[in-house]
Amino acid sequence: MSFSPRLQELLTALRCLPGVGPKSAQRMAFHLLERERDGARKLVDAMHGALEHIGECQRCRMLTETDICPICADKSRDDSLVCVVESPADVVAVEDSASFRGRYFVLMGRLSPLDGIGPSELGAPRLEQRLQAGEVSELVLATSATVEGEATAAYFARVAEEHGVRASRIAHGVPMGGELEFVDSNTLSRAIAARTAV
Amino acid sequence: MSFSPRLQELLTALRCLPGVGPKSAQRMAFHLLERERDGARKLVDAMHGALEHIGECQRCRMLTETDICPICADKSRDDSLVCVVESPADVVAVEDSASFRGRYFVLMGRLSPLDGIGPSELGAPRLEQRLQAGEVSELVLATSATVEGEATAAYFARVAEEHGVRASRIAHGVPMGGELEFVDSNTLSRAIAARTAV
Repeated sequence: MSFSPRLQELLTALRCLPGVGPKSAQRMAFHLLERERDGARKLVDAMHGALEHIGECQRCRMLTETDICPICADKSRDDSLVCVVESPADVVAVEDSASFRGRYFVLMGRLSPLDGIGPSELGAPRLEQRLQAGEVSELVLATSATVEGEATAAYFARVAEEHGVRASRIAHGVPMGGELEFVDSNTLSRAIAARTAV
Repeated sequence: MSFSPRLQELLTALRCLPGVGPKSAQRMAFHLLERERDGARKLVDAMHGALEHIGECQRCRMLTETDICPICADKSRDDSLVCVVESPADVVAVEDSASFRGRYFVLMGRLSPLDGIGPSELGAPRLEQRLQAGEVSELVLATSATVEGEATAAYFARVAEEHGVRASRIAHGVPMGGELEFVDSNTLSRAIAARTAV
């Protein structure tokens, strides 16, 4: 059946959300209009506020409401360690692991020449400035364990080398709590190749 | 890690969408802010427009932009048949089946005394007015095949009887294309009990 124009517009607009297809868009639209009008109004305001006020941190490219994000502004953190990640969600994941007290640099993507994403789209010049300044002693490459993620890590490892900065890559292997029989063979072969002395 | 106030607000507001928990809210918020700002702006406008202009049809309670919805306004449809459904999404489903050319009445819920949802919350008085008017000859009860749906159907069957209107219930049984071995036993026992002569 054909929907009224404004409902159709809403259905189309909802599809910009990740993982939302025609069926979930319909479910969301009806849910909001039938019994979540207050929630929907709050969502309109929250989205509007976020779009207006949330931008990129001038130092690390993290999403932030201020020029410099709270992590970059935190004087208690270690300036000599910089963790390179692909997205703001990765910063959240690393922070939640409570295992890193250095700074971050968010690439907002990964090298993908076919999509026109090269080093400058990933903010490489800004990161190089930080390496040039001489404060950084180690670049921790925490891009994802995919082909593009590995290529991106390799690129920034070279950049670090050029500036005389040590580069490291986070470890890959069997996840904690993971049972061997359920680990894919790719991960397992990496885990065996990268075994460490006990 | 703690998010900035506006981001936190957005994360909370996104949770009003059905099926969206903390993790998907974070994924949606980052997705919109990182690479769908145009889409997000369109979504804000579309939601605002829908909230302002989409209300309930005065006759059948379907969501509509006009006082009377297109289905109620369509002069070519059969006034003597009224299909009672629980939600606007059910109207869409019945319309898509292209098997019904009568009118609808949308309950916007189902009887649930514990939640304070009785006949008047479901618009029963408005439906009774239509039955009273004498144009309706059959009420097709298409509420869902759940305990509350059956109770709701039973209630409106009684209402129809009081007004001398025939009530019918849509058939329940094995779905078309469904293989017997994968049909749950509840459905199967219903299908056997309601078998028809060949």
